[in-house]
Amino acid sequence: MNKPVFKKVTVIGVGLLGGSIGLALKAADERIAVTGVGRRKSSLDRAMDAGVIDEATLSTAEGVAGSDMVVLATPLGAYECHLSVIRDSLDRRAVVTDVGSTKSVSVRLAEAILGAGGPFVGSHPMAGSERRGVQFARADLFIGATCIITPTTNTRPAALRKTERFWKMLGAQTVGMTPASHDRAVARVSHLPHILAAMIVAIQRNAELGLAGRGFLDTTRIASGDPEMWREIILTNRRPLLTAIDAADEQLMRIRDLVETGDARGIERYLASAKKRRDKLLARQLKQW
Amino acid sequence: MNKPVFKKVTVIGVGLLGGSIGLALKAADERIAVTGVGRRKSSLDRAMDAGVIDEATLSTAEGVAGSDMVVLATPLGAYECHLSVIRDSLDRRAVVTDVGSTKSVSVRLAEAILGAGGPFVGSHPMAGSERRGVQFARADLFIGATCIITPTTNTRPAALRKTERFWKMLGAQTVGMTPASHDRAVARVSHLPHILAAMIVAIQRNAELGLAGRGFLDTTRIASGDPEMWREIILTNRRPLLTAIDAADEQLMRIRDLVETGDARGIERYLASAKKRRDKLLARQLKQW
Repeated sequence: MNKPVFKKVTVIGVGLLGGSIGLALKAADERIAVTGVGRRKSSLDRAMDAGVIDEATLSTAEGVAGSDMVVLATPLGAYECHLSVIRDSLDRRAVVTDVGSTKSVSVRLAEAILGAGGPFVGSHPMAGSERRGVQFARADLFIGATCIITPTTNTRPAALRKTERFWKMLGAQTVGMTPASHDRAVARVSHLPHILAAMIVAIQRNAELGLAGRGFLDTTRIASGDPEMWREIILTNRRPLLTAIDAADEQLMRIRDLVETGDARGIERYLASAKKRRDKLLARQLKQW
Repeated sequence: MNKPVFKKVTVIGVGLLGGSIGLALKAADERIAVTGVGRRKSSLDRAMDAGVIDEATLSTAEGVAGSDMVVLATPLGAYECHLSVIRDSLDRRAVVTDVGSTKSVSVRLAEAILGAGGPFVGSHPMAGSERRGVQFARADLFIGATCIITPTTNTRPAALRKTERFWKMLGAQTVGMTPASHDRAVARVSHLPHILAAMIVAIQRNAELGLAGRGFLDTTRIASGDPEMWREIILTNRRPLLTAIDAADEQLMRIRDLVETGDARGIERYLASAKKRRDKLLARQLKQW
């Protein structure tokens, strides 16, 4: 076996995503030492017991020392503090990335603290779960998933290549986008569906919820996601999300018209077109997974 | 073993639902003879080969003769024709029900043709799939599912009891509602989510659809349903659906306000309340299934 690409990887925040990164790294190359940084000793102990990380520490400075690759996997609110410590403790050749669901705010923050042209390259693996915590971590979480990498004009090519290699090692396919175009795309493909799923639940009457079938539960699965995490995602992507909401409202009014006028052909065409697109997407994604 | 409750059951339309009724009946009591009525010999042959029905015929009159229970499982557009034949061929003590997703129109039609106080009792089993055809039929499709039964003031108590017994035998839990209140409830709990799922697909740009993760595919699963069938559901439930769409629009504008003003507390409260309701619903439904 050839030399490992990464000797030591540090994951800051060992929850579902951080834990899955640990498991996936060790599945890809068992020689990689994975260090977990956390806020609570109890959760780090659980991560150690589950074999998700090899080393645990409450100190970010200690955790990132000697690391080739540092992955921020905490809520965005904790970035500033971790990035400041990272700036003073990071090895010269190390790269820093993250898993945040919105990128404009986090990339701007990271470049401000670590320096433009510094070690930071933003990432967003399109994988996850409505469940929270290291107990749901899975070694195959990223296999076949798309990971969006969001370099800026400042990004060092070597850091970008290293970040791409990192995600590919975990089984993901990487796609490059600017932070702004990433945020516009995920507002439509991820954040809007989340809001609509919550809305579908909110609209129901208690007495009628018992009528909900499996279709209802599937449609609303993502509404069981962590409200605190999603609050942050929404708040850091307000403008693109408002645009997506307005587009949704326009579509809803278009459907309303079709229903009100009883336009059989228009209704069927609308549904058939959605079905065709989704069936095609499903076939394509299933091939990747 | 005691006397079978039903000796002969006739299913008109042997697709996913009709086929699943056949399988579930035979699983419940193998002495029940299941007759399938269809439009095409090829699909009836497939149903016979799959062991979904015991007898097959292209003639509705022949199919319902001697039957204790007749289940209409065709698109609504075929009801009038079948009901007219049923009227002239049905045994005196037989009961007729259906599986239609909207009830005001179908119950009115059935009572007009078979007579108010006649053999008809409307049903709507809340089970199904986005897939179509007898090859997806499952003996356990109705187990733990809710079946809404929609008697009117004309309905004979004996026919109602027989219909309830029928669905319970297939594993469903029965709930009684008037046709109108059924239609209002399913507009919110089933038809609106369907429309929104199609809308979520429609709103995406082709270039960005590749970013869709498992969450997206779950949220939009029902958008892969049969467009023709859903066109009929929508067209026969326009008024309740318009009310549901208006309620959705109101909610969407409420969420838009929260996002526009950056109301962190309001956003989290909205998401947390949806999560709580869905988690509770999921726990309850899982217990039933």
